[in-house]
Amino acid sequence: MARRLVVKRSSKKGKPPGSLVHIGAPSDAPAHLRLIRYDQHALHDQPLNAIQALPDLKQDQVTWLNIDGVHQGAVIEALGERFKLHPLALEDVLNTDQRAKVDEYQGYLYLVMRMLRFDPVSQQIQSEQLSLVLGDNYVLSLQERPGDVFDSVRERLQAGRRIRFLQADYLAYALLDAVVDHYFAVLEHLGEAIENLEDELISNPTPQTLGRIHHFKREMLLLRKSVWPLREVLLRLSRDDSKLIKPETQIFMRDVYDHSIHVMDTIDTLRELLVGMLDLYLSSVSHKMNQVMKVLTIIATLFMPLTFLAGVYGMNFEHMPELAWPWAYPAVLLLMLAIAGGLLWAFRRRGWL
Amino acid sequence: MARRLVVKRSSKKGKPPGSLVHIGAPSDAPAHLRLIRYDQHALHDQPLNAIQALPDLKQDQVTWLNIDGVHQGAVIEALGERFKLHPLALEDVLNTDQRAKVDEYQGYLYLVMRMLRFDPVSQQIQSEQLSLVLGDNYVLSLQERPGDVFDSVRERLQAGRRIRFLQADYLAYALLDAVVDHYFAVLEHLGEAIENLEDELISNPTPQTLGRIHHFKREMLLLRKSVWPLREVLLRLSRDDSKLIKPETQIFMRDVYDHSIHVMDTIDTLRELLVGMLDLYLSSVSHKMNQVMKVLTIIATLFMPLTFLAGVYGMNFEHMPELAWPWAYPAVLLLMLAIAGGLLWAFRRRGWL
Amino acid sequence: MARRLVVKRSSKKGKPPGSLVHIGAPSDAPAHLRLIRYDQHALHDQPLNAIQALPDLKQDQVTWLNIDGVHQGAVIEALGERFKLHPLALEDVLNTDQRAKVDEYQGYLYLVMRMLRFDPVSQQIQSEQLSLVLGDNYVLSLQERPGDVFDSVRERLQAGRRIRFLQADYLAYALLDAVVDHYFAVLEHLGEAIENLEDELISNPTPQTLGRIHHFKREMLLLRKSVWPLREVLLRLSRDDSKLIKPETQIFMRDVYDHSIHVMDTIDTLRELLVGMLDLYLSSVSHKMNQVMKVLTIIATLFMPLTFLAGVYGMNFEHMPELAWPWAYPAVLLLMLAIAGGLLWAFRRRGWL
Amino acid sequence: MARRLVVKRSSKKGKPPGSLVHIGAPSDAPAHLRLIRYDQHALHDQPLNAIQALPDLKQDQVTWLNIDGVHQGAVIEALGERFKLHPLALEDVLNTDQRAKVDEYQGYLYLVMRMLRFDPVSQQIQSEQLSLVLGDNYVLSLQERPGDVFDSVRERLQAGRRIRFLQADYLAYALLDAVVDHYFAVLEHLGEAIENLEDELISNPTPQTLGRIHHFKREMLLLRKSVWPLREVLLRLSRDDSKLIKPETQIFMRDVYDHSIHVMDTIDTLRELLVGMLDLYLSSVSHKMNQVMKVLTIIATLFMPLTFLAGVYGMNFEHMPELAWPWAYPAVLLLMLAIAGGLLWAFRRRGWL
Amino acid sequence: MARRLVVKRSSKKGKPPGSLVHIGAPSDAPAHLRLIRYDQHALHDQPLNAIQALPDLKQDQVTWLNIDGVHQGAVIEALGERFKLHPLALEDVLNTDQRAKVDEYQGYLYLVMRMLRFDPVSQQIQSEQLSLVLGDNYVLSLQERPGDVFDSVRERLQAGRRIRFLQADYLAYALLDAVVDHYFAVLEHLGEAIENLEDELISNPTPQTLGRIHHFKREMLLLRKSVWPLREVLLRLSRDDSKLIKPETQIFMRDVYDHSIHVMDTIDTLRELLVGMLDLYLSSVSHKMNQVMKVLTIIATLFMPLTFLAGVYGMNFEHMPELAWPWAYPAVLLLMLAIAGGLLWAFRRRGWL
Repeated sequence: MARRLVVKRSSKKGKPPGSLVHIGAPSDAPAHLRLIRYDQHALHDQPLNAIQALPDLKQDQVTWLNIDGVHQGAVIEALGERFKLHPLALEDVLNTDQRAKVDEYQGYLYLVMRMLRFDPVSQQIQSEQLSLVLGDNYVLSLQERPGDVFDSVRERLQAGRRIRFLQADYLAYALLDAVVDHYFAVLEHLGEAIENLEDELISNPTPQTLGRIHHFKREMLLLRKSVWPLREVLLRLSRDDSKLIKPETQIFMRDVYDHSIHVMDTIDTLRELLVGMLDLYLSSVSHKMNQVMKVLTIIATLFMPLTFLAGVYGMNFEHMPELAWPWAYPAVLLLMLAIAGGLLWAFRRRGWL
Repeated sequence: MARRLVVKRSSKKGKPPGSLVHIGAPSDAPAHLRLIRYDQHALHDQPLNAIQALPDLKQDQVTWLNIDGVHQGAVIEALGERFKLHPLALEDVLNTDQRAKVDEYQGYLYLVMRMLRFDPVSQQIQSEQLSLVLGDNYVLSLQERPGDVFDSVRERLQAGRRIRFLQADYLAYALLDAVVDHYFAVLEHLGEAIENLEDELISNPTPQTLGRIHHFKREMLLLRKSVWPLREVLLRLSRDDSKLIKPETQIFMRDVYDHSIHVMDTIDTLRELLVGMLDLYLSSVSHKMNQVMKVLTIIATLFMPLTFLAGVYGMNFEHMPELAWPWAYPAVLLLMLAIAGGLLWAFRRRGWL
Repeated sequence: MARRLVVKRSSKKGKPPGSLVHIGAPSDAPAHLRLIRYDQHALHDQPLNAIQALPDLKQDQVTWLNIDGVHQGAVIEALGERFKLHPLALEDVLNTDQRAKVDEYQGYLYLVMRMLRFDPVSQQIQSEQLSLVLGDNYVLSLQERPGDVFDSVRERLQAGRRIRFLQADYLAYALLDAVVDHYFAVLEHLGEAIENLEDELISNPTPQTLGRIHHFKREMLLLRKSVWPLREVLLRLSRDDSKLIKPETQIFMRDVYDHSIHVMDTIDTLRELLVGMLDLYLSSVSHKMNQVMKVLTIIATLFMPLTFLAGVYGMNFEHMPELAWPWAYPAVLLLMLAIAGGLLWAFRRRGWL
Repeated sequence: MARRLVVKRSSKKGKPPGSLVHIGAPSDAPAHLRLIRYDQHALHDQPLNAIQALPDLKQDQVTWLNIDGVHQGAVIEALGERFKLHPLALEDVLNTDQRAKVDEYQGYLYLVMRMLRFDPVSQQIQSEQLSLVLGDNYVLSLQERPGDVFDSVRERLQAGRRIRFLQADYLAYALLDAVVDHYFAVLEHLGEAIENLEDELISNPTPQTLGRIHHFKREMLLLRKSVWPLREVLLRLSRDDSKLIKPETQIFMRDVYDHSIHVMDTIDTLRELLVGMLDLYLSSVSHKMNQVMKVLTIIATLFMPLTFLAGVYGMNFEHMPELAWPWAYPAVLLLMLAIAGGLLWAFRRRGWL
Repeated sequence: MARRLVVKRSSKKGKPPGSLVHIGAPSDAPAHLRLIRYDQHALHDQPLNAIQALPDLKQDQVTWLNIDGVHQGAVIEALGERFKLHPLALEDVLNTDQRAKVDEYQGYLYLVMRMLRFDPVSQQIQSEQLSLVLGDNYVLSLQERPGDVFDSVRERLQAGRRIRFLQADYLAYALLDAVVDHYFAVLEHLGEAIENLEDELISNPTPQTLGRIHHFKREMLLLRKSVWPLREVLLRLSRDDSKLIKPETQIFMRDVYDHSIHVMDTIDTLRELLVGMLDLYLSSVSHKMNQVMKVLTIIATLFMPLTFLAGVYGMNFEHMPELAWPWAYPAVLLLMLAIAGGLLWAFRRRGWL
């Protein structure tokens, strides 16, 4: 288990608050910038070399700037200057071990959350931090790595659907919705794997089963740690008065909020299921041990008296009249058979066989 | 265990919010529509072929349109157009893995909840999603499959009782009440099965008992997952100011709310009972193992010294004076008897026999 | 365990809300009515044959009508007509599986709660539903069976004490106080039985002990299920503005509320004690098993080497020089003694003896 | 365990509310009254024979009347008349099984709480009920038995410190502070005993250890039951507007409140520690059992094959060529040695030795 | 385990509230005072011999006085007089077993919290109490021992960064931030140690593993006890209206608050992980015992029948025809081989080998 539940941020300790030091897995990959500008009539989609190449924002257009690779501090700093972002917000972008939250600054909202994917090979959740900045007519999305869950949003933008007629707050909603929809996808995979494990547990528990129950409990811990604070964020977005989110978009935010609660409910249900599975496993181990003990006891109880009897007639006393009787040997063999039969009958009556 | 705690909604992932894609068990069955219109004087009950065949609503009449088979997206779309429903509400109707909730839209309330039935053969809860749309003078009820819990409501409507003198909000209440009453029915079956299992556990626990405790814990998880959010829905219906629910109906809503709390209390009590039963089972397994160990120990302790004694006199030394004594053999047999008797007496004093 | 945690209400399912169907243990016993009217000068106490025989209420008199036997639907219906009670309240009276609650209707309060008694023979809590209707100058009390906890209230009324100078709301308080006082009585019995069981557990645990721990956990579940919702009822009565309860009576209601919290605290303490007792029991079982294992191991470890030695000299090889030595036999016996002594010394050093 | 978690109050059941019946351990000892009156200039400290001997209160003096022995109902009744106390408050004074609470009456506050002491001999918490009545310029303190935690307060009064310049509410604060300070003292003793037990558990667990863990869990239950409600009382005293407690005293009340939270935190920490110790104990028992099993298995595995081999050459067949071989006996002995050695080597490789 | 979860404060018991008695580890070391005064133009950093040597505060300068060694009551008393601190605040400074809290006094805020460090040698958290007094233009920081977590703050002050342009409230924030940042550092170490332990648990559990799980659970208890109340303190600082903390600093306080929640989340996650590890360990112990039992059972089941057979043919009956058969001996040996083979085959089929 190479992943860490606690991300190292020692490099940060002792730096002034707001200092732009990247915390997270180090990387040398360059940052990728992609600019999408649209209104109901047209859409421009272009890669960008640097923040400096960003054209002026137009008021009647929605601008969506996506940046992959927040480890490139210089890019983030340039972005901060261009959009006049608060140092604390920039620090949060770079510190990729954030708890989901929303902070309202002068003129823009800063949101941070985790974007999850399920890796079917390692059966682990892959986690990445996503920061969103929602301004009056622009959305900035900042990710750790290339590859995201927003392809469907881009397709809808290209296709010129309803989203093109609406403002930046609706775009932010669409991105949030895509993130939460992927939580469901992760849950689906986990749920399926857990229920498969449950079937396996009932039919054929192995020592590995326990390790896998532990593994899934760990994944659920991670998932819960990501979703729980996002729930509060979405509640605030759907309730608070903020000029940046229009009332008609709040209805949609409430819908994502409902989804996030549904995710939490399912996580809790799966967690309780895992606890129940652990009980089941432990008890099946107890049961097996019981079976082994029974076999041992039956064998010992069966042969000890017989061996004793054989031992008695193996004694070398000179005066043992039975030894001379012609039918003594078969009689003793019969007696042994009778004892064995009687014991087996007693075992069967006790329900041990 | 074929049922899934997490329903697949992957087909949905990446679709725009509000897109009408059915999520749930696929089916080709046609949708069934049934229209009931009534006032205190008359009641018309008729099947409908299509939404398009729906007559205009009259203001002084209550219209109840029931649709079985929400997987028929076209029907739902037509319904949405006819009643001007919000795309999010329509999406929720089709997505049959919803958490119970109530959303207030312009001119109507949208409610979604789970309708439960207990299948005595599989000892499992059968679950189906029910959506209700409560307008000024109409109620739409949307189900996944034919067959529901509303026969009693229909009978009361036919019989011309009080319900005929009241408005659409009272009809909605009557439907909610029928749903919650069925939760009690499910609980009754589960409670009876669990208490039977408890009796069995005390009189004759078997390895299967544990699997059944696990099974019932799982069913309680499912039940709780359905009832818990409905409780909040009913609280809001009985408290919030909404033009669509009159104050005199709110008294009735409060009553259903009380029932839902009672259901929750009983679920929690049964869950705690199941936990207690698990403890009891595990400890009865321990106790049995103890008994087996005792038998083994008694047998081993009894025969090991005797066999050793027999072994001693089976040795072939030339100079063993006892071997020649005439009374040695019966004396050794007596000694063995004395040892066995002494050990048995010691066991009895220790309470092992 | 004949009692059910979930009461059958199937007969009710499908009936319109407010329909007067009795839910609970069926009975043919007639209903008993007892009317007490009093003011500070006089008190009239008389049995009543029927609701119809009830005289008109006088404004300056407190009327207390007690009915034993709510299964007699006709009586309840007549009562409902006479006092103009809401159908939902009447339904709750008949449905004897109610959660404690208070409902405020026009002109009266409807309270429902459970009245508990401890049966020392079966060591079980006997439970009965009590409904109270508190009007301006009357109190109706409705019970399932004859026999209640109100004798002390009747005595105080007869004796002409302070209660005679006060209004109907104080009478209601006195009845509530008597109910909660009986919860304490039940707790006293349970607490004593549990602490006796704890002593027994420490001095001499038996397999029956576990069943009894389970039994008491079950009783605590039932008790908690009764008291928990009553607590909320009493809080509302001591806080809410209601014309029916005067401020000077609210002080008394607050006192009963404090008592109910005290009951809850004690229940929780006893529940935690029972959990601790279960741990203690399971661990004492483990300990016993350990002892048994030790005995087995000591015996086996002692005799196996000796028996092996005897076996060696029981072999029939022609060339075993030791067999011919004159002192071989006593030497081997001494060797055996030495081995046994050495092992015993080793066991003692390991603390096994 | 002679102490009861539930105090008998059956003698009370059926009495009218407010009836002055003592509930608690019966006693014949007379009540002791001690009157302290002070202002910044002088202090009078005198025993009192009866309530009737109490001089009139002076407005500019603080009067502190302490009564040991609330079982003397007559004294309490006289006190009630003299200070015009509400019957419910008097009832609470006599009922020495109260949950901590504060009740505001016309012109005075009534507080009740538990005063705890740790008896190092029985390792048990000794508990006594303390009632405080805080009036405008007087404090009444009512205890069950002589001996209390207030000596330090009396000393400070004698010494003429700040407390002499302040009012009755500050005196009440000083008494509360002394009570909570003693909770810390109890916790210190318990904490020390528990941590000693933890050391013992790690170095040398015995069956008695478990009983002592259970004992301390029980004491923590009792302690928690006393402190938890007091916390609420102190919160109310430090927050609520009451003419009887001045704002400058509320700062001090907040300080006692903080102390009570600290006590609760420590109780919870110790409880969790005890749970961890139980796990540790149970697992050390498992581990010991494992060791015993290993010894048994090693012995059995070692000697069973050897004994079998000896048995084979003890058979009496006429045609066993090995028996006649001159080197057969030492060869068999060597073979036995080799088998034993091989097995021991296998055990060591498995890590059993 | 020499550290105590409960610090002795008996020396305090019975003292008047506000009395300046040091509670904590006794020490004779002298107190160290260090005075830093700065504005945006200049910074003066100097040690101080005594409080009396403190120059007058200038309004346009921020004064930070740090004191190491609060056990020197005289120093604290002098400080109290100089800054007119409330006796309760001084008492809290000296009592080094405080729960984190913030108290607002006239003209200054008093904060107390724990400063944590992880000692990698003993694998234990080292804890020290830190008191902060935030006045209009000064900050007092009071520690138990020399050595703290504020070096980075001092460096930033020296370097003349933003912090030099801001007020005393920002300095207080910077100190709080440094404290919480060190919590992350402690968590990192603990998290790494726990995850290493998890790997060890899966690959090679030893009896010591359990003791270490217990050790880390204990450390998490201590950590949680420190962080939990600090969280509330930070929430109040970021929300409450206080003239001493400016709105622009509150944004920063909110950021520290978010960090503290993140710390709590991680603590809870690690605690749950530890619980899961305990289950895993216990079950691996069970599994090992199962293995041992299996070996024992296999050996016993294999050799008991064979030994019995050898015993039979070791009997000395005169009439045992088999003994004379020439091929009897090899036939019996073959039979024994067949029995052993058959048993081994049966074991393999049961999955025991």
